[in-house]
Formats: sequence, C-alpha cells, structure tokens
Amino acid sequence: MASNGPVTAGEAPAARGAPVEEGVRATRFLDLRAFLADFHASTAFGATSGGGLDRQAGTPDHGRVRDWFQGLAERAGFTVRTDRIGNIFALLELVPGAPFVLVGSHTDSQPRGGRFDGPYGVVAALHAADAVRRAVDRGQLHPSFNLAVVDWFNEEGSRFGPSIMGSSVFTGAIDIDTALTTTDPDGVSVADALEATGRLGEALDLDVAAYGEIHIEQGRRLEESGIDVGVVRGNWTAQKLRARVVGEQSHAGTLLAYRKDALLPAAKIVCLVNDLAKDYPASDFLSSVAQFDVSPNSPSVIASQVDLILDLRGRHHCHVASARAEITRRLTELSAEHAADIEIDEFVVRPRNEFSAAGVRLAQEAAESEGLSVLLMDTLIGHDSVAMNQCYPTVMLFLPSKDGASHCEWEFTSDDDMLKGLRALTAVLSRLVQHDLR
Amino acid sequence: MASNGPVTAGEAPAARGAPVEEGVRATRFLDLRAFLADFHASTAFGATSGGGLDRQAGTPDHGRVRDWFQGLAERAGFTVRTDRIGNIFALLELVPGAPFVLVGSHTDSQPRGGRFDGPYGVVAALHAADAVRRAVDRGQLHPSFNLAVVDWFNEEGSRFGPSIMGSSVFTGAIDIDTALTTTDPDGVSVADALEATGRLGEALDLDVAAYGEIHIEQGRRLEESGIDVGVVRGNWTAQKLRARVVGEQSHAGTLLAYRKDALLPAAKIVCLVNDLAKDYPASDFLSSVAQFDVSPNSPSVIASQVDLILDLRGRHHCHVASARAEITRRLTELSAEHAADIEIDEFVVRPRNEFSAAGVRLAQEAAESEGLSVLLMDTLIGHDSVAMNQCYPTVMLFLPSKDGASHCEWEFTSDDDMLKGLRALTAVLSRLVQHDLR
Repeated sequence: MASNGPVTAGEAPAARGAPVEEGVRATRFLDLRAFLADFHASTAFGATSGGGLDRQAGTPDHGRVRDWFQGLAERAGFTVRTDRIGNIFALLELVPGAPFVLVGSHTDSQPRGGRFDGPYGVVAALHAADAVRRAVDRGQLHPSFNLAVVDWFNEEGSRFGPSIMGSSVFTGAIDIDTALTTTDPDGVSVADALEATGRLGEALDLDVAAYGEIHIEQGRRLEESGIDVGVVRGNWTAQKLRARVVGEQSHAGTLLAYRKDALLPAAKIVCLVNDLAKDYPASDFLSSVAQFDVSPNSPSVIASQVDLILDLRGRHHCHVASARAEITRRLTELSAEHAADIEIDEFVVRPRNEFSAAGVRLAQEAAESEGLSVLLMDTLIGHDSVAMNQCYPTVMLFLPSKDGASHCEWEFTSDDDMLKGLRALTAVLSRLVQHDLR
Repeated sequence: MASNGPVTAGEAPAARGAPVEEGVRATRFLDLRAFLADFHASTAFGATSGGGLDRQAGTPDHGRVRDWFQGLAERAGFTVRTDRIGNIFALLELVPGAPFVLVGSHTDSQPRGGRFDGPYGVVAALHAADAVRRAVDRGQLHPSFNLAVVDWFNEEGSRFGPSIMGSSVFTGAIDIDTALTTTDPDGVSVADALEATGRLGEALDLDVAAYGEIHIEQGRRLEESGIDVGVVRGNWTAQKLRARVVGEQSHAGTLLAYRKDALLPAAKIVCLVNDLAKDYPASDFLSSVAQFDVSPNSPSVIASQVDLILDLRGRHHCHVASARAEITRRLTELSAEHAADIEIDEFVVRPRNEFSAAGVRLAQEAAESEGLSVLLMDTLIGHDSVAMNQCYPTVMLFLPSKDGASHCEWEFTSDDDMLKGLRALTAVLSRLVQHDLR
C-alpha cells in the first residue's frame, strides 16, 4: 500500500501526537506519508479544473478510482469482493470465522463536488485497518473480530436517487432490485452503470460486529471551536419530499388568462420552503429546495411541469413534522390559486436516531488517548453511518472542513487535520476489533 | 407531388369557396386531397405518442422530414438548393433572370410541440406554388417574378438559440459564422447538426421581390370571432433577457446564515416577472420566464447558479421599455437582499414593425376573392415573416388554432380550416408573382 518508504507515525515526530495508551498502539504502525500520498493520488480521478471532483456514482471516473482502491487494498494483502449493489469490501481475516468490524465511507462525489467528502474516509480506513493488522502481527493487539474496509456505492445520490444507496441496500432498508433498476436522467440503470464499471458483484453475507466511519464535517462547529475531532451522538431527522407541479404547455405568446404556467407556482414553492425555516430556531432547523427540473424548459414555451425536491432537516422530529404539515397546507392553497395540480410524496424519511452510547464513549476515549480534543455533536445530514446505525453499533467521527464548505470544489481540510483524523480512526478501530459493542 | 389523383379545387365542390376572381384563378389548380395527404404524411416524422411532434432543429427526425420535403418538391419539378445555414429553397423559374417571390415557413418543432406550427406553412407553400405554376402553364396567369418555396432552418430556437435563426441569417440580421458555431446543451454545433443531416449547403444569392407565409395563430382571436383568416398588420415588440444568478454551492445541511443559495432569488425573479404584467392592460402586454436552468441541480446541494430567460412582449414599445427598466431596478434590490450576483443582458430585441400596407391590402383582397372572411391583426410573437419584413415586402396570413393552443401536442386545426388557408395563400401568391410590392 505504501507508495513511499515505511515512515511510521512512531518515526515521524512532527506528526506525532500525545502519548499512545499502552496496549493499544496501532497508531504507531501508521505510515503517514504513504497515507497522504495515497489520499492525494485518489483525487486525480475525476479531478475538475476548479480543484474539486466530478465523480458521480457509476461513471467511468468513479469506476477508475474504485479499481485503483482495489489495487491498493490487494497490494496490502486485503481480499477484495464486490456485492450485488457494487459495495466494495477489502477483507482482512484476523480471527477465522469471527464477525467483521466494517470501516469505510464512499468514493463517489457530487457534480463539481469536493475532494474530501467520502474519499478521505475510504483511504483513511484502509490505512487504519493496515495499521491495526501490523499491530496484531507484532502481537501488540489481540483482536476478537475481523476487519473489512468498505467503499459504499452511491452515497451522494446525485445521479441515482436516493442517496446512501449502497449501505441502505446492505442493511435491507432499500430493496436490491429496486436499487438496481433505478435509472439516471438519461435512462441508464444502476445495474448498467455497475456492469459498465465492472462492479456488478455477487451476494455477500457478512456478519457485522460494528461499523466505523470518518468524514469531514458539513458545518463549522469544529473549525469555530478549534476542536480536533467530532464524535457523533445522533443524526437529525431528515425528510425529503418530491413535489410535481403540473400546468399546461403553451406558447409564451399566450395571454395570461389562457395560461396554466407550472413555473410560477413552483417558484412560489421555493419561496415558501425557504420561509418555513423562519418559524424555528436557526440552529435547529433547515429547509431548502435543491433540485428543480422544468419541462419542456424551452424559450417561448410556458412550462407544463416542474419537479422539485424539498429538503427538511431538524434536530427535533416535531419541527420537521410540523413543517411538513405546513407545506401540505400551503401547497393546497397554491394549487387552487394557480389552477395547477401539485402532488407531493415522501421521498426519504430518516428519523432522529441516537448512536451507540458505548460507541461514543469508546471513540471519545480513543481520540483523547491520541491527545486529540473531542466535540460530541449531531450530524445534520445523512451518511452511510446513519444507515448502518439502524442495524449495527456505529461510531462516526468528524474532522474539520474549512469554512464548513461541502459539496463544492473549494472543500478543504489540511494534511495536518487529515492526519489527526487518521490517528483518531485508527485508535477507534483498534478498540472496535477488541471490544464487542453489541 | 400529388400522392392521390389530381382532384383539383375546381372539381371538389365540398371544398369550393366563393367565386374566384377572373384573371387570378390559381386556386382552381390546387389539388386539395393531395395537399391533405402530404400535410398529414409530414407529421409522421418525429411524431410523439401524445399526438404532437418532437422534431427540434437539426435532429435526425428533422433531417428526415426535410429530405421528404426535398423529394416532394423535386418530383413536382422544383430545383432544390440548401444555403449555408441550412435553409432549403425549392426554386421554380417562371421568368428567367427575374427576382423571386419567396413563400414558406419551417419544419422544426419545439420539444413535444404541435403538428401545425411551421410544417403546415411549408406544405401549403409548396402546393400553392405548384398551383400558381399550373395557372402560368395554362396561360391564366402572367408572372413578373420567379417562385421559391422555403423551409427556414431553426425557427423554434429550442435547441439552438436564438429562434428565427435561418431567416435572420438570410436577411443578415445574424452573422452566419456566429450561427454555425452556436452549440446546443450537449455541445453540438449548428454546423455539426447541419452536416449530420446533410444540410450544410452553399452560399445562395437570391434576389427577393417579396415574402409570403401562412401559420396557425398563437391565440384565440380567429376562433373566438369565427373569422376564416388573419392578415398581419404588425408585430409586437419582443424583448428577451438572459439573467444569471450566482450564489455559492454548498451542502443542503449548511445553516441558512452560511448559505448563498442561487435558487431562492431566481424563484423570486419568476414571481416578479409574472407580477409585472399586472401593470399593463392584459390584451397589450405579456411577460414570462420560460427557461430556468439550475446548477448543479442535485438533491442535497444548494444551487450555485441559475440561468433564466425572461420574455417580455407588448403591443406598444413603451410598455416593454418600462417593464425592462422595472426589472433592472428590482433585480438590483434582489441581489442586495440575497448576497447573490445577478447579471442580465439583452438576448433578443425585436421592435414593433408594421407590415407593408400594400401587402395587407393585397392579402385582404385575395382572401376575400376566395369568399373568406378576414381579420386584420397583430402577431404577438416572432415568425420568419417578422425577420423577412425587416428587409422585404412581406405578407403574413394566420389560420385558426383550436383554443389558441400552440407549442403543445394538442395543437389542432381542422382540415377544412387548413384548406381555407391554402386557398388564401394561393390567391395571395398568384398576386405576389404579378404585382411588385417594392
């Protein structure tokens, strides 16, 4: 795996943190230079001129970074397998027949997305697992479980909806056949895209003991507080709604009295969804419209249809529920006012869920053992860890992202912060392979 | 040309109108059944399941209907040539060396557009010109000019902007190189699309005496008044503006205080453009937003950019000018309110223009000679005739369209109304080849 010489953390004073707790010394076996080299190498696949990534799920560039990841894992002695929805598992058998501790994230990106959201967690997981293996090999760590590094398919959901697809199929929250037949706007199915990138794999039955993930924060809480890593206590309630406004296609030269414009009520929906947030504390509730498709979207043609995706997120479930009820009421009014049909339906509903309290304690202790400061926090948004947390004890770490930027080309985390995160993850992983959180 | 036997108007009492004026008897030579067969045959190319057409400029289906048109014209003895911007001319030399009377329309459609908008005028022009030629051959009509039926390229502008491209290049209002290098959203240029459909022709120098066109009305004035045909006196002022709203891409989980959402101010622009129309008489002014492109348009991503096309149309130039000034003022306010950059620039400006008064008189007299009732009217929207009227004496006829429907699949004009229009156009054409309007 190491592209450079084996310079381990123990031999690199500049990157060395606080004293490592006796008995859990896996971070000593990290090859920090090799990690940085590997991480930065991963960002070449689908690199944009603006410094970001454009590597949506199942595209050729996504296929190439995944092949690169498989090569890296195999050279490090992992056995790589791909399941039916294209999740890639790099397996490391430490205790024959034992359940697996999974650790990973995703390598797909948003269109013109950032370099860190996802890939950091995958490359960090591979290096952390490799360091744990070395500690085991040297007899410094006595595992109860096996290890698997996972690259989940289609976390972003920008090409194929919904997001967090691969991990949700893994937990059974999304049906495999539904997922495989989902199509992108050009009519290409998930199955076609997986086939084209060589990732239409086979059923994989993995007994999971726990799941771990590290990811950049979508927000500024770590940056503003100057704290090294976040440990996630729970996820906000999230609710996405599809709205379809149906009017009647006509010429832009049609008198207003004869038009049934779908665009005008759709524009009003954008305004009302944004206004909703004013009813709740700013730090507890978010609403937005992030996708807006006009049909036929031609000059000189009054729109016949607009499809929108509405996004509500809240710390408290009751806020999201009341906002959803308010939207329903207002859309009924809008529909009557504009003689346009407006349909809404549930798209994604992800209730607030707490993460394993034992996992939170374990992660805090592990990070602090590396001399890192810790902030206990919620995640406002979905991650593969949120899907996994429905079924398995899950530990989620955050590291800072400059200005809280995310899903954009100027997403940035420093090498120094990435190494701190890697050490925290390695310390967590070395504990997860020993202690059963179930 | 005739797909059926030569059943002429003179032999088809059901379709026969009022007495034909002595000396201008070209309508006697119309083959009405063949016209209907040819028109309906043309609607098979790019037919949609909803009963309309999807035949945008330079697409394979557009290429096929144009090849079909060329075959029809050649079998009827016309010489067919294509110019550099893909306008197709079917030439008929009646008076060697004399200027040409042009008559035609366009065969391209909007996405999911109607069957009548454009193609009717092209097929009617070919049959009208053929009838005039027969009248000349029989010595019943003595022409001063030659005849050419034209199928203008890209009237709709839905794939390649701006609309009315072919006729505007013909008059010199649009530069040929600018037009050829214009690209569609997939990056295909006009030149590529013309090449692919075999319509990248050669420079054609045509001396034009006059232009005639017949088209369905975009509106209900003919239908509501029960009048057979419209004769256009002038076109409304039209102004299109491009607006670009630039925010900052971020995660939908970003707190509102840190967002620079481009979608919200863009939605407000749609509302304000629609509100503008309330300041003017409903029969004199129209405003709309008909194209709205969100970037990156992904769920979970706050939009970084929205591109809109704003459309203002008015009977009086002063209304459009004051509406444009009001938009500029309001966009400056919106930009400040939302910390988003909003740029606007002129896209198409088409001032009110009167059509040749002599041409209006000629057309009214010609239609009435066929026993048809006539409404003198404005066109609210652009046509190839509006471009040609900037340079040449131009006659524009309208025929009714059910419910004023246009740019939609349920656009409908009855066979009976189409035949009335054909007779009016033929009577107009038989006069234009004799009388110089210049």
